[in-house]
Order: sequence, then C-alpha cells, then structure tokens
Amino acid sequence: MRGEERVWKGLSKGQQTREAIVAQGLLTAAREGLGAISIGRLAKELRMSKSGLFLHFGSKEKLELAVVEQALVQFLGHVLKRAEDDQLRGIERLWSHCDAWLDFVEHGPFPGGYFFTGVFFQTAKQNGPIPRLIRGAVRNWIDALEEAAKQARAREEIKTDTDTQEVAFELNSILLGAQWSHLMTGRDYTNARTTILSKFRSWAAEEIPEKAFRSVKAWKVYLANRDGRAGK
Amino acid sequence: MRGEERVWKGLSKGQQTREAIVAQGLLTAAREGLGAISIGRLAKELRMSKSGLFLHFGSKEKLELAVVEQALVQFLGHVLKRAEDDQLRGIERLWSHCDAWLDFVEHGPFPGGYFFTGVFFQTAKQNGPIPRLIRGAVRNWIDALEEAAKQARAREEIKTDTDTQEVAFELNSILLGAQWSHLMTGRDYTNARTTILSKFRSWAAEEIPEKAFRSVKAWKVYLANRDGRAGK
Repeated sequence: MRGEERVWKGLSKGQQTREAIVAQGLLTAAREGLGAISIGRLAKELRMSKSGLFLHFGSKEKLELAVVEQALVQFLGHVLKRAEDDQLRGIERLWSHCDAWLDFVEHGPFPGGYFFTGVFFQTAKQNGPIPRLIRGAVRNWIDALEEAAKQARAREEIKTDTDTQEVAFELNSILLGAQWSHLMTGRDYTNARTTILSKFRSWAAEEIPEKAFRSVKAWKVYLANRDGRAGK
Repeated sequence: MRGEERVWKGLSKGQQTREAIVAQGLLTAAREGLGAISIGRLAKELRMSKSGLFLHFGSKEKLELAVVEQALVQFLGHVLKRAEDDQLRGIERLWSHCDAWLDFVEHGPFPGGYFFTGVFFQTAKQNGPIPRLIRGAVRNWIDALEEAAKQARAREEIKTDTDTQEVAFELNSILLGAQWSHLMTGRDYTNARTTILSKFRSWAAEEIPEKAFRSVKAWKVYLANRDGRAGK
C-alpha cells in the first residue's frame, strides 16, 4: 500500500519527507514569519530527529529558501493559473489576475496572505537568494498585469493612450491597500473589487457600456453576454 | 567634559548607553529586518560585553520592543509633526500628512522606509507586545488621516457626502503602492504626489478651482494664495 502510494505520487520517500518538512515550515512562516522557522522546532513538530531533518536541507538558509520557493509557486500558481486555464485575454484577463489575487489572500493557504507582502517589504533592498527569489516573483506578477493591460489596449478595450505600466502599478496598489485595510479592520475585499472596477471604467474605451462597471455582478454579466455575442 | 555633556543631555550614563543600543539596533533592523537583531551582534558592534548589554534590556524581546518603539516614535513624530507645528487644518493638513509620509520614506532614517510596512504585514495577525505596538501606531496614523478628512469635510473643502474612512484608506493605499513601486523599480515619489492630488480633485468641493490640482507646484501656489486671501 505504502509502495503503491509512493509510485502513484511519483515521489521517493526522501522527496516525500522533504515536502512534508517544507509544508510544515510554510505553515509556521505564514503564521509567525520566516524568522520563526528553525530546524529544532520543525523536527519536534514532525517528530523527526534534528540530524535527520538537517540531512534534507543542510542549513537553515536552504530550508528557508525551500519554504519561500514553495510559497511563491503556490502564490503565482493560484493568481495566474485561472486566466491561463480559461485562456482569458485583455481586460478579462486583467480582472481575473486581480480577482484571483484577492481570492488568494481571502481563502488561500496563508492566513491573511500577508506572508509575501511582509517579506517583500522587509527584504526588498537586501541581497541574497531569498530577496532575489521574491523580487523575481513580484516581477513576474507585475509583468503579468502589464501584459494583460497591453492586450486590453491592443484589443481596444481600454483607451489607446493608456499607460499600461501605470495600470499595473495602480491595480497592485489597490490590492496592497485592501490587504492592509483587512489586516487593520477586518473589512472584507468587496470594496477592493468595486474600486478596481471603477478604475477599469476610467481606463475603458467607450465601447464598454458604463453600467458594466457598476458592480462585480454587472461586470460578470457584461463579460458573459459579450462572449455570447461573439458566438462563443 | 563628559559630565557636562551628560548634564546637557539630561540623561544618565545608563540612559545614554541604552539609547546607543537602541539606535544601533534600529539601524540593523531597518537594513536587515527585526530578526537580524541579536544581543551578541549589538554587543560586538558597540564594543560592549554581552552581559553588559543584557543588563540594559534583560531579554532579546525587550530589546526588540525598545527598537520598534523608537522606530514608531520617529515615524509618527515625523509624519504628524509638520501639520501640528504649522497648525494646518482640513485638506491642507491631509496633504501635509501624506507629503510628510512620502518625505519620511524618501529621506528618513530607514533605508527605503520599508521597516514598518514589512513588520506590519508580517505581524498584523499575531499577538504579543510588538504586533500590538505596531497596530496601535498604524491606528494612530489612519486616525490622523481620517481626522484631517473630517475637518476638510466640515470646512466644506471636500464634498459633504465624502466617506472620510474611505479617504483615509485610499490615501494609505496610494502611499503603500508608491513605496512598493519604489522598491521594485527605483522610481521616485513624484507620481504618488500627483496621484494624491487627482484623488483630492475627485473629492473636492467645487469652490477649489480645478487647476489647483494639476501639479504639486500648482497646489502649493493655491494653498499660499488662499491663505493670503484669508488675510493670514
């Protein structure tokens, strides 16, 4: 049975143990920050020997790096995957990225989702593998936003003179602000979504009727009908 | 001479040493994060014995707390002091708070000013004295923004139906986004200031001429002339 499981998962026992260690480390880091990870603590939580755990990573730094790597894979996987799977384009893709980002901090595996934001702000000006990894992921994220905005501009969904880098920065700023407000006041992310739609309205080409931006529901109805009209 | 200095500063030698330790800790935390502070490291940097340094704080936690406390005093002192000193009111006070916040992250004692933002996002959902202290300071900051917005509304500088909590959150979100963009791309904070002015324009009562919001310079000219007209 155990053997079968291993074959099914396609992972050696060593890889499985490594994954379990990273998963436990991620849980700790998400709750208490990256600094809270220690080989001793994880060994205790996983009922392993410290030397056994050490064998898998060799150093605390490598363990931290594996945890951050895993966190980033989950984050980027979640926020960019939906648009990819559904082959969304242009303004719909832009919306999907933002909506999935909010969904990740609302319902994702990290409580509050403040893990990256915190580590990013704390390490952005530092050197070393972890800051580099995080900067790279953040770069991927902002590039994905800008790319979708460029598509929207090419498809004439947003005005042809729109500054797409500015679009990416403004959307990201709304998301950060929403996360901050949630952490401070516990308010949900409804406001963030309507703020994003009002931004969309200010950028949108005249072809999109103004009422499409009035609420998240109206926006979804607009997208669905638009696809319908296109005979999809 | 040493005695005179002590009298002049009004601090005992013990207090002076304590301040020097906190200052050094703050420098380290600002550059490398709060986790980088250790009694051993600070003792080395300050050429003190570990036990001597330990005497002043008793624990790493108390040292960290003193560092965060000092950081927050500097931060709130800087960002709220200007409006207080100049007895600014309403929309001018709101502008001063935001402008001073940007000025603090641009030219303040912490490189990039990402120290609080990082610690806030990492600890916002945790318990303990440091998260509590930071939440309290962040609460002070957001309250100061909202208070100024309420003044601006009472003085009919902004529309009477403006949601002042929303004003505070939106301004804070622009500031966070600007800091983030600076950390990612090195861009300066000019954009943030014009974005804030365009927000002001959308909230402003009709009495303020639209051209006042066109640039930071135009805004300053407007404020100066307005005071002039009021016979101040």
